[in-house]
Amino acid sequence: MSRFWSSLTHDLRPYVPGEQPRMAELVKLNTNESPFGPSPRVLEAIRGEAADTLRLYPDPQATALRAALATYHQVLPEQVFVGNGSDEVLAHAFAALLKHEAPLLFPDITYSFYPVYCRLFGIAWEAVPLDEAMQIRIADYRRRAGPIIIANPNAPTGIALSRAEIVTLLEAHPDAPVVIDEAYVDFGAETAIPLVASHSNLLVVQTMSKSRALAGLRVGYAIGDADLIEAITRVKDSFNSYPLGRPVQAGAIASLQDEAYFQQGRARVIAGRERLNRGLIRIGFDVLPSFANFVFARHPAHAGAAITAALRQRAVIVRHFQAPRISDYLRITVGTDEQIGRLLSALSDILGSRS
Amino acid sequence: MSRFWSSLTHDLRPYVPGEQPRMAELVKLNTNESPFGPSPRVLEAIRGEAADTLRLYPDPQATALRAALATYHQVLPEQVFVGNGSDEVLAHAFAALLKHEAPLLFPDITYSFYPVYCRLFGIAWEAVPLDEAMQIRIADYRRRAGPIIIANPNAPTGIALSRAEIVTLLEAHPDAPVVIDEAYVDFGAETAIPLVASHSNLLVVQTMSKSRALAGLRVGYAIGDADLIEAITRVKDSFNSYPLGRPVQAGAIASLQDEAYFQQGRARVIAGRERLNRGLIRIGFDVLPSFANFVFARHPAHAGAAITAALRQRAVIVRHFQAPRISDYLRITVGTDEQIGRLLSALSDILGSRS
Repeated sequence: MSRFWSSLTHDLRPYVPGEQPRMAELVKLNTNESPFGPSPRVLEAIRGEAADTLRLYPDPQATALRAALATYHQVLPEQVFVGNGSDEVLAHAFAALLKHEAPLLFPDITYSFYPVYCRLFGIAWEAVPLDEAMQIRIADYRRRAGPIIIANPNAPTGIALSRAEIVTLLEAHPDAPVVIDEAYVDFGAETAIPLVASHSNLLVVQTMSKSRALAGLRVGYAIGDADLIEAITRVKDSFNSYPLGRPVQAGAIASLQDEAYFQQGRARVIAGRERLNRGLIRIGFDVLPSFANFVFARHPAHAGAAITAALRQRAVIVRHFQAPRISDYLRITVGTDEQIGRLLSALSDILGSRS
Repeated sequence: MSRFWSSLTHDLRPYVPGEQPRMAELVKLNTNESPFGPSPRVLEAIRGEAADTLRLYPDPQATALRAALATYHQVLPEQVFVGNGSDEVLAHAFAALLKHEAPLLFPDITYSFYPVYCRLFGIAWEAVPLDEAMQIRIADYRRRAGPIIIANPNAPTGIALSRAEIVTLLEAHPDAPVVIDEAYVDFGAETAIPLVASHSNLLVVQTMSKSRALAGLRVGYAIGDADLIEAITRVKDSFNSYPLGRPVQAGAIASLQDEAYFQQGRARVIAGRERLNRGLIRIGFDVLPSFANFVFARHPAHAGAAITAALRQRAVIVRHFQAPRISDYLRITVGTDEQIGRLLSALSDILGSRS
């Protein structure tokens, strides 16, 4: 606390990302990273940018990357915004689109960065409780409201809404922006991108960090009506002209050009998730039905914090949220087969030694 | 304009960066990039990060890079903040430190992003006119004021204040943050970093884009009292946890480890600047005394816009600002010897054909 701080600064409660410990032989299942590396074409493209041309600024509009995303998702380049990870895209979208007189709505249990953005930008919000099954009930959003943001699949539950439910939501809220945050959509849920053509208030946010195994590169994007994209672009251009460096733009384009690798990676994660699900159920966990690259699970007889701590002693890191309604759950990233095996055996060991 | 936009969005007037044209054989002297590429060690470090590990998030605190910067500048790691280019560092500093009841002061002619940030964050400001010689007069800042931000050397003039003048400024303003934006300091001006130890209100911002030839990578940083750094970090952690990807952090560290290359590059640019100065004076330009990697010059008999357009026809791009007091000036980046030669010969041609 200091007299030199802007008054805003005192009131912030920053987002706390999952830790990045540097322990050897760690089974790191806490930040929903891909267990498999990115496409070799991405690595080659980045190496190609490790060159004299780094002295030059990157394209501030990321024209080639936006064109590649537009082709990939069958939209127009002016319907695409790119940013430094989907967190930056969300930040700009909150500032540009989600501050209205009526409060922003989002689920009580969702990506914990949303209230952080609200505090940063002075946005009023209301949290809409998930139902007893930890699901988003679209009917609960049928109220006087400003904008809406929903993670689909939701985090940290992994539960997905169908595209038909998103249509219902959009049709009940034609007068305010609706953001669908699809960070995990590639692991089995339905994207809302095809709805952009018919819904001028819809913004869909995706990331290359998870399904494209590029968390270390920093690329996220939004797709929506050109009018929404213009608003976000104005904010971005009032903040930082060049958020994506040259190796980043080249690597992201290369990822879009290796569809076979992308499809294979997705399929392997989905198969691993089903293996992890079965293993957890076998040793007594309740597991929510996940469409993401993680599962959210609790054990009826053991506290979440205790299991998390015991796993850590065995060099297995999962994410635990000390928050209402979910403090008994573990969020476990889908790892390699070997990592899933080590996790399940550590859990059996922990549960066995306590029963 | 749209009913979906936050009201803020309507009022923004985004920064317009220098264009990045893609013409062959272009002499590009419009965005103050280094004419020489980055250290080979940087390229090697980036190639080393084009690896499987890109699937993992980068260190959100950039611990190793901050430690390297702390060692390099002889401060503590908690006195260092890093961001996605110095524009992002400035954006967070404006939000975290520069919004107070009394208006922010900066020169009327300076980096044109400052008023853009003010509009984005709702910061009141007053512009303090440069004197007739286009210099910042420290005495003009002796008034009731909130925070102050000064680019040193100033942009687009290139004129520098001495460290003694910065001390005078700091001592007249002990009660509000003072930001010194040193994007161009490595080309001959004195850095204010040694004053951080004795002035808890001083924040110094630098970039790796210019003197380290890394505009394409996106690295900037701030050095100041740990209390100021904490404020900026809070805002950053409420905005985007991971603004610097893995190749970026590795490349920036490698740049700091190649001091010989850095010193050589700086010296070559300074030598080029003196050659450019002499050449411009020889053909009749008035040239401001620059301590940057660019010069700001005007011709008494030719309008700035006309010369800029004529240069463009000859595939030479310089920056021209259609703004009060400076519309007859050209801002010309120091290029290679060959580029300087091509610029001067194009100018001789233009001036000759008109006289």
